Amino acid sequence: MKRGFGSDNHSGVSPEILQAIAEANRGHALAYGDDEWCQEAERVFRHHFGEGAKVYFVFNGTGANVLSIDLMCRSHEAVVCAETAHINVDECGAPQRVVGCRLLTVDTPDGKLTPELVKGRLHGFGFEHHSQPKAISITQSTELGTLYTPDEVRALAELAHSHNMYLHMDGARLANAAVALGASFEELTAGCGVDILSFGGTKNGMLMGESVVVLNEKLDVDAKYRRKQMTQLASKMRFTAAQFIAYLECGLWRRNAEHSNRMARRLEEEVRRVPGVEVIYPVQVNGVFARLPREAWQALQKEFFFYDWDFDRDEVRWMCSFDTTEEDITAFAAALRKVMGQSGQTTCASKTEH
Amino acid sequence: MKRGFGSDNHSGVSPEILQAIAEANRGHALAYGDDEWCQEAERVFRHHFGEGAKVYFVFNGTGANVLSIDLMCRSHEAVVCAETAHINVDECGAPQRVVGCRLLTVDTPDGKLTPELVKGRLHGFGFEHHSQPKAISITQSTELGTLYTPDEVRALAELAHSHNMYLHMDGARLANAAVALGASFEELTAGCGVDILSFGGTKNGMLMGESVVVLNEKLDVDAKYRRKQMTQLASKMRFTAAQFIAYLECGLWRRNAEHSNRMARRLEEEVRRVPGVEVIYPVQVNGVFARLPREAWQALQKEFFFYDWDFDRDEVRWMCSFDTTEEDITAFAAALRKVMGQSGQTTCASKTEH
Amino acid sequence: MKRGFGSDNHSGVSPEILQAIAEANRGHALAYGDDEWCQEAERVFRHHFGEGAKVYFVFNGTGANVLSIDLMCRSHEAVVCAETAHINVDECGAPQRVVGCRLLTVDTPDGKLTPELVKGRLHGFGFEHHSQPKAISITQSTELGTLYTPDEVRALAELAHSHNMYLHMDGARLANAAVALGASFEELTAGCGVDILSFGGTKNGMLMGESVVVLNEKLDVDAKYRRKQMTQLASKMRFTAAQFIAYLECGLWRRNAEHSNRMARRLEEEVRRVPGVEVIYPVQVNGVFARLPREAWQALQKEFFFYDWDFDRDEVRWMCSFDTTEEDITAFAAALRKVMGQSGQTTCASKTEH
Amino acid sequence: MKRGFGSDNHSGVSPEILQAIAEANRGHALAYGDDEWCQEAERVFRHHFGEGAKVYFVFNGTGANVLSIDLMCRSHEAVVCAETAHINVDECGAPQRVVGCRLLTVDTPDGKLTPELVKGRLHGFGFEHHSQPKAISITQSTELGTLYTPDEVRALAELAHSHNMYLHMDGARLANAAVALGASFEELTAGCGVDILSFGGTKNGMLMGESVVVLNEKLDVDAKYRRKQMTQLASKMRFTAAQFIAYLECGLWRRNAEHSNRMARRLEEEVRRVPGVEVIYPVQVNGVFARLPREAWQALQKEFFFYDWDFDRDEVRWMCSFDTTEEDITAFAAALRKVMGQSGQTTCASKTEH
Repeated sequence: MKRGFGSDNHSGVSPEILQAIAEANRGHALAYGDDEWCQEAERVFRHHFGEGAKVYFVFNGTGANVLSIDLMCRSHEAVVCAETAHINVDECGAPQRVVGCRLLTVDTPDGKLTPELVKGRLHGFGFEHHSQPKAISITQSTELGTLYTPDEVRALAELAHSHNMYLHMDGARLANAAVALGASFEELTAGCGVDILSFGGTKNGMLMGESVVVLNEKLDVDAKYRRKQMTQLASKMRFTAAQFIAYLECGLWRRNAEHSNRMARRLEEEVRRVPGVEVIYPVQVNGVFARLPREAWQALQKEFFFYDWDFDRDEVRWMCSFDTTEEDITAFAAALRKVMGQSGQTTCASKTEH
Repeated sequence: MKRGFGSDNHSGVSPEILQAIAEANRGHALAYGDDEWCQEAERVFRHHFGEGAKVYFVFNGTGANVLSIDLMCRSHEAVVCAETAHINVDECGAPQRVVGCRLLTVDTPDGKLTPELVKGRLHGFGFEHHSQPKAISITQSTELGTLYTPDEVRALAELAHSHNMYLHMDGARLANAAVALGASFEELTAGCGVDILSFGGTKNGMLMGESVVVLNEKLDVDAKYRRKQMTQLASKMRFTAAQFIAYLECGLWRRNAEHSNRMARRLEEEVRRVPGVEVIYPVQVNGVFARLPREAWQALQKEFFFYDWDFDRDEVRWMCSFDTTEEDITAFAAALRKVMGQSGQTTCASKTEH
Repeated sequence: MKRGFGSDNHSGVSPEILQAIAEANRGHALAYGDDEWCQEAERVFRHHFGEGAKVYFVFNGTGANVLSIDLMCRSHEAVVCAETAHINVDECGAPQRVVGCRLLTVDTPDGKLTPELVKGRLHGFGFEHHSQPKAISITQSTELGTLYTPDEVRALAELAHSHNMYLHMDGARLANAAVALGASFEELTAGCGVDILSFGGTKNGMLMGESVVVLNEKLDVDAKYRRKQMTQLASKMRFTAAQFIAYLECGLWRRNAEHSNRMARRLEEEVRRVPGVEVIYPVQVNGVFARLPREAWQALQKEFFFYDWDFDRDEVRWMCSFDTTEEDITAFAAALRKVMGQSGQTTCASKTEH
Repeated sequence: MKRGFGSDNHSGVSPEILQAIAEANRGHALAYGDDEWCQEAERVFRHHFGEGAKVYFVFNGTGANVLSIDLMCRSHEAVVCAETAHINVDECGAPQRVVGCRLLTVDTPDGKLTPELVKGRLHGFGFEHHSQPKAISITQSTELGTLYTPDEVRALAELAHSHNMYLHMDGARLANAAVALGASFEELTAGCGVDILSFGGTKNGMLMGESVVVLNEKLDVDAKYRRKQMTQLASKMRFTAAQFIAYLECGLWRRNAEHSNRMARRLEEEVRRVPGVEVIYPVQVNGVFARLPREAWQALQKEFFFYDWDFDRDEVRWMCSFDTTEEDITAFAAALRKVMGQSGQTTCASKTEH
């Protein structure tokens, strides 16, 4: 497959991760998490997320999100989230099936919840006909490549806690956010009142493996049974733990995220130079969202794989990754210029008028 | 951790598997299974399981079993299985939670269902108060280290099909069975009327990754959505596929299974020589189940990790793995002789009288 | 409790219903629906809904809706409905818990879906990350007291069927709609392409008992098991059937619905005369929705129980019932005039400006 | 349908119940339980079950049992019950679907659990691969017409509580048990350590309506939401409450249960006189279980509807009801004698030898 900007999980694995897996492949270890790598990984997580952090390894982001929701909510309760949240649009209804709860979605301009937006969903408390709001879920960085400042997260945490609710953060790309915000994981999570976190590495150079980090000890109830019952317990867990150790301990997470963020800014520079291409969200981490004429982006897709983000509005997504190169960007920009030359900016200009 | 006989997933990963992962780490690939490794793996699966086989990769054995059940049964239906089946005793109720169906369990002498045993559960058809039997699930080789002959499997398939039911095989250790029975995977599955198979490699040298192999095309309905919604869809699936290619294409599955089976026979020889130790099931694959006095096995556990299989009956399980060595067996047998000498066979003899 | 306009289920039971129950109380009858009353009721339903109609009695509206959804959708599929739909806002997440599916909600001006509105939700087909749209659910008459014309229903059915989807109608108040539209039940359902219907009588003078009417025989699969497993199978079902016979056979449904609709128009006349009270939806069946100053409606609630429909927008709901009297309306209107006099129209006028 | 002994829910409704329904049919009342009848019923329940009792009305026995289990267990937990328990064999897997938990079944000689039998299921605590035992469920009187003494119940409660588990009683026929044991409801439930109770009236002369009685306040968490979400919330609940008031307040429950129990003893006398008919369980409440030759019971079924209880063992069930008459028994006994005369006792005698 041609290299491109389809997704940050189209890239492979950082060499350090493969190295860590190979090194963990020695001798026997207890399965299901009772091994020394898992113990070491737990220590590393506490270093990054605070001494109160408790980590549960899972297989993928959907598993992490569903387990997080499961620890916060029972089926008659509900999670407030952005309409664009991964848990809402990209998990085929996994929270509904596995937890049985409702998601109360909110339209947002940029993928970000605000206390004002959330409040519109906080009613019906005590009324048995309504699912009871019990959690707010935000994604940091968001599915639209935007960021919450720590203060914005804190405000949502305070709103949640003042209603006896919890704040969940989907941190599939938390590394990119931390680099962009110049803050530690702890500052961005426990430090802002986040109660539970889905923390991933797969989109930033790991092979496979995500985690649920429980920051509010009240939520650390029966988690091991819940994880097992929802099919997310790995047997040879040392290989997940070893990846996370390599990822977190020597700054791999930071190097990879810095690189992919930087590449996205480079890509943004390039595409902004192409008349008729409109960058529609601030490029704060590793994704560039753009609007351009349909014939142009569809022509471009023949050469490079990427997703249209909103077909009707001609919005597309281009993601950078830890292994994106300057050459990748140069080649892509050249192709973009070419299709834009063919398609003509007139169409695009007229489109953006309405 | 000291090497031992705790489980075949206490061992690490075959070098060929790590090599395959490293080789798959090149360039970009579409996520979620639309990559060239997955296509190649599908070809390899069809070679081993027949041209009609359709494979869905998942993360672990519980995921494979739950997806298999989900493709056979709706929640008001039921699966007949042995009381000792992994789906019944070792998955924390995952089938009940994720599929919502019942398991109709049958006591067996050796972990094996027979048509006679199953028939006792086949009633209440058409009666809405009863869960409707819709599938039979067997484990090959069984959780007790025993084997079904192809004819035995075929008889269960015929029983199932004559009641408009399906036959599922949990093949977490199918490689060990194939080696022991001298039969191909296809002969042991599609060739015997098996409709759907959980096929695993983790217990036989793979790092992580199991699969559902749909052999009856009627069951291949909406599988990709069901897998995703139950949280079992991997993003960088090429690394699962690459493992299976390495596992299946050049006989790694066979070499590993032959070795672990042979080691189990060696272990059996050794422990049979120790007075007071009773081997309780035929050692047909890679596990040895034994009965010995409690003080002996508990003393032995201080040195080697292993599971008591039935505490009250003083039955324990010792599993061999692809990396078990003669030295492992020698050391373990020596320790066993030592604790048996200490504990005295008198106790054991008296125990086995009642 | 003081008589009022809180809900059409605050009223009691029509005498004909009690009479029918008493008459059904003779001798023995098989439980769970195998009795002569159920057979007779099935005949009556076929008379009203067409020869292809198959009825399943359940206990309540939530049961009817959840069973309907369950017969149309599996958990990875989704139902498009209005944001204001009862299944979305008033069932505490029952569809999510019991079926495990998603609801794809649409904002509407008046509680009514249109093909245009629905189309915005019909995407992602074949993409495993998205719940697959499988049904459209409408409420006739709607939760806002508005009506679909038969042509409007037909257009939605055609849209559904052209996407291999089904059309569900929540007919908790179908009798009120049928009276208002001057159409038969069959014309409004099977005649418009409705595939499955929740048909209720409790809000129109029955004691207890709702039904699922399957109009598309493709959906009549395993319904009896699904009903039982979701706890909706009654033992002494003859008493449900007898109610429906009395309700449907001699026009009770029509008399009751005509009365409550007429009373709503009378109530509308009265409240429209009160300055500062704004009727916000067309009064097409038995409910009046109004906007008035907060101090006024809250003062009125001290005398009469009713629900605010949208607190922030000062919208309230007043429902008429089969037993609403002219005196009820006179008394309520007098009280309304009184609180409006106290609260002053100025506030209201200023409020409605923004 | 011919009167007979098919089930205690084949009979109709006591006149007092119909009377109470008719009397509750006056004026308006808040729906969903906020009415004066429900308040009065709650008082009556506290009188019968103790001041700490909290009642939740539901529609049917399956609803009561599933809500009870839902209040005790989460999906990763398990309920120990008899293999013959209604929750296990007669609810089409409702607990598995709605709660998602496992039932750990125990074979019993007479439908009754004992501490010894239960203990065989109490293992795996803390082991995440195993569903965690969290409740014991017993049926009083049992599905086989047998009774627990208060001491027997107490012993099970103590066992449950000593393992941090709960004791649930399925009291669909608790009235029959109370009459037979000469004890109050409170003595048989809260007085014996029962934590939560399914309490029914439908099998003893009520029209429709069962209840969950929470006796351990720890279990009274979110019950109203759980009931609603599982589709068991009635709108015109005053009519359920009114039935229970009539049932409990003036001894109707006692009169009906005394009658049906007495009729069962009469029936037993009669059938014991018929050579070749073997009564297989002590007749302690209102059911007679018998073994007789297949040709005989099948011939008898042509005249009277009743269930074979165990086809292979030629065991059948004959239930008496509040409206069973001496004439019913005389007619049935005559028919029984007739078919037994035809079928010949020889067959039966030879059958009972093995």
